[in-house]
Amino acid sequence: MSTISFPEFDSIRLELNEHCLQVWLNRPKSRNAMSLQMVKELMALFEILEDQSEIRTLLLRGSEGNFCSGGDIKDMAAARAASASQKSQDIESSDISNDPFYQLNREFGHMITRANRLPVVVVAVLEGAVLGGGFGLACISDVAIAVDGVQFGLPETGLGIPPAQIAPFVLKRIGLTQARRLMLLGSRFGAEEAHELGLVHYQTNPDRLDELLSSILSQIKRCAPGANATTKAILLAAETMEHEALLDFAAGRFADSIYSAEGSEGTLAFVQKRKAAWAE
Amino acid sequence: MSTISFPEFDSIRLELNEHCLQVWLNRPKSRNAMSLQMVKELMALFEILEDQSEIRTLLLRGSEGNFCSGGDIKDMAAARAASASQKSQDIESSDISNDPFYQLNREFGHMITRANRLPVVVVAVLEGAVLGGGFGLACISDVAIAVDGVQFGLPETGLGIPPAQIAPFVLKRIGLTQARRLMLLGSRFGAEEAHELGLVHYQTNPDRLDELLSSILSQIKRCAPGANATTKAILLAAETMEHEALLDFAAGRFADSIYSAEGSEGTLAFVQKRKAAWAE
Amino acid sequence: MSTISFPEFDSIRLELNEHCLQVWLNRPKSRNAMSLQMVKELMALFEILEDQSEIRTLLLRGSEGNFCSGGDIKDMAAARAASASQKSQDIESSDISNDPFYQLNREFGHMITRANRLPVVVVAVLEGAVLGGGFGLACISDVAIAVDGVQFGLPETGLGIPPAQIAPFVLKRIGLTQARRLMLLGSRFGAEEAHELGLVHYQTNPDRLDELLSSILSQIKRCAPGANATTKAILLAAETMEHEALLDFAAGRFADSIYSAEGSEGTLAFVQKRKAAWAE
Repeated sequence: MSTISFPEFDSIRLELNEHCLQVWLNRPKSRNAMSLQMVKELMALFEILEDQSEIRTLLLRGSEGNFCSGGDIKDMAAARAASASQKSQDIESSDISNDPFYQLNREFGHMITRANRLPVVVVAVLEGAVLGGGFGLACISDVAIAVDGVQFGLPETGLGIPPAQIAPFVLKRIGLTQARRLMLLGSRFGAEEAHELGLVHYQTNPDRLDELLSSILSQIKRCAPGANATTKAILLAAETMEHEALLDFAAGRFADSIYSAEGSEGTLAFVQKRKAAWAE
Repeated sequence: MSTISFPEFDSIRLELNEHCLQVWLNRPKSRNAMSLQMVKELMALFEILEDQSEIRTLLLRGSEGNFCSGGDIKDMAAARAASASQKSQDIESSDISNDPFYQLNREFGHMITRANRLPVVVVAVLEGAVLGGGFGLACISDVAIAVDGVQFGLPETGLGIPPAQIAPFVLKRIGLTQARRLMLLGSRFGAEEAHELGLVHYQTNPDRLDELLSSILSQIKRCAPGANATTKAILLAAETMEHEALLDFAAGRFADSIYSAEGSEGTLAFVQKRKAAWAE
Repeated sequence: MSTISFPEFDSIRLELNEHCLQVWLNRPKSRNAMSLQMVKELMALFEILEDQSEIRTLLLRGSEGNFCSGGDIKDMAAARAASASQKSQDIESSDISNDPFYQLNREFGHMITRANRLPVVVVAVLEGAVLGGGFGLACISDVAIAVDGVQFGLPETGLGIPPAQIAPFVLKRIGLTQARRLMLLGSRFGAEEAHELGLVHYQTNPDRLDELLSSILSQIKRCAPGANATTKAILLAAETMEHEALLDFAAGRFADSIYSAEGSEGTLAFVQKRKAAWAE
């Protein structure tokens, strides 16, 4: 039984199965549009996941057949009202970072940055609408599955705005060459192109999704959770560290892992030709 | 009617159709080799494009069936003569940046850097010879089309010189793994491999080129020109900005866009379920 | 005849054919596991290759059908013994960089970093086991061939440790999107997937390997060795240099090449429509 307790959430729904926490984006009436409330609930969840070792996989998906249709229109309207009110009160607003639209947008960037750095393995099931912010969130998954029928798109520039917080994550995901085309053309595309672009790792029809997920979850189970967290930390450190400093850092983490309980168990299990404790 | 006036150009030829400026590299006798004159004319053109909002697409292609066969032999000969003359005058030339070959090469790098940062969408039609500098120029397009029969190649190392100004752009375009092979083997390849490598976005036979172009131009038309320019600015800022600073910058541009005429029109058109003004 | 003399090596075996040095990882009983001894011998070899112009290609492969199965178990045992001894002697070991496991791991990183920067063209023939450190070494090749039947894998996290020195090279080779999946799932895969992932440039069945190698070696022969070395230097400089500084650096190397013996011969051979001296 789990020893972790979660708060009550409104816009996401949780299901824990062994080492895998399934998180459903759960605002189906708006095709799971990413509201500020949902952003905050996800961050509260991430805070819990950053500080535990029981859950090893975060399986991210959307309820009722859509992953996430992007930013929420109501939040945009609220920001417009706040902005109008701020201006009528003649508040000094020369600093753009006090602006309600700035803050709404930036908060999403904080969430997705944190999602990218989670120590657990993030698996995303991409179905239905995967648009705007939903597209951005898909870009930080460690394992991404596109289900036939999915529609990916970056519609922002068609609405007169840039895919702002999303752009850096799309760039890291599929590279500059494809990112510039998709954004400047406001392209829409399906599972096959997503796979060809390297946006997702797997393409599947809905009937075979469970089988694929089950196979991925068993692969994750074979890998030590601490070693996986360390591996993600090394990969993310590569974004900012100079080459030799990064290799020094990695060697330090290697030695730490060797002396850890996982390192001992892994070596012993290998010699004894048995499964390691974490894989049973 | 256009309000923009262009100077007379010798080595490039312009055709304006609505929001699309078609620019033909136009030295067909040398398969549109990139002369210093052509470099200067392109930069004069870019200066105009950086400061206007009427033209939204730069469609770049070569006249008479070749895109661009690389650097111009005559400029190389002139540089050799200048170098000889400089040396015979015993000019202090310990600073390599005063060297005529250095300057010829570097000027091309300035041009391609500027092309990469243009606020308009750059579409390249790649036919016939796409070699050396022509290959480099292809690498900065937002949308690239390889027409069957095209021949891509980096012949420099076969001539005893490196693909110098070109290398950084090829690297960003297709990544280190493929860049190192293509350069060190002096590889030549066609449309299909260009598509597989991710160098271009589309492969087409010549008969279907117009249809493809027309579809791309309508997609561009649906996207707001200011939002597209902002999106390019964010993508290019990602090359130098630290992650959090980049997201701050992007949030600022997002808020700016919301308050712009485009942002208002885009939102309104969406609510009213009609095309935005820029898309009509 | 070669004027280069090599020391006696135990764990690698050399064969020189014209401009190509074939280097066999040669510990077949352990499927050519990368021992500390092998790391040191490779570095001694690299030191020779960095300072000569006769050898233009390093053809890297493993004896008896395996490329390299990863780190050597015996070295790990020795490090454990050294670590135990160090601790029993109550040596101040607060500095992780004095740790035997740290040093064993870091030494591999030094070797692979140096391999990545070799001025010669590195071709890797990937057969049988290409695991862990062997996978990392494959990632620095300029030209990589996967032979049908090969098995690629990053088994580290299954043993409770991260792919530490390897991660940065895998990241540069295939990008973050695929690197995170392969490492966190401990994936195994064959030649076809390696080609699709962009990890290798060619996939071949064993019967056609010699023909493919012969074609690659003739392509390398057509390219000037000095220009190739300069090209690699520019590509690697791109990792650390700011964009304009990189273009300045590249223009300097371009001018240097023009004035070099290779530059003169290349231009002359082109005008005279004959093969350059290095291509004969």
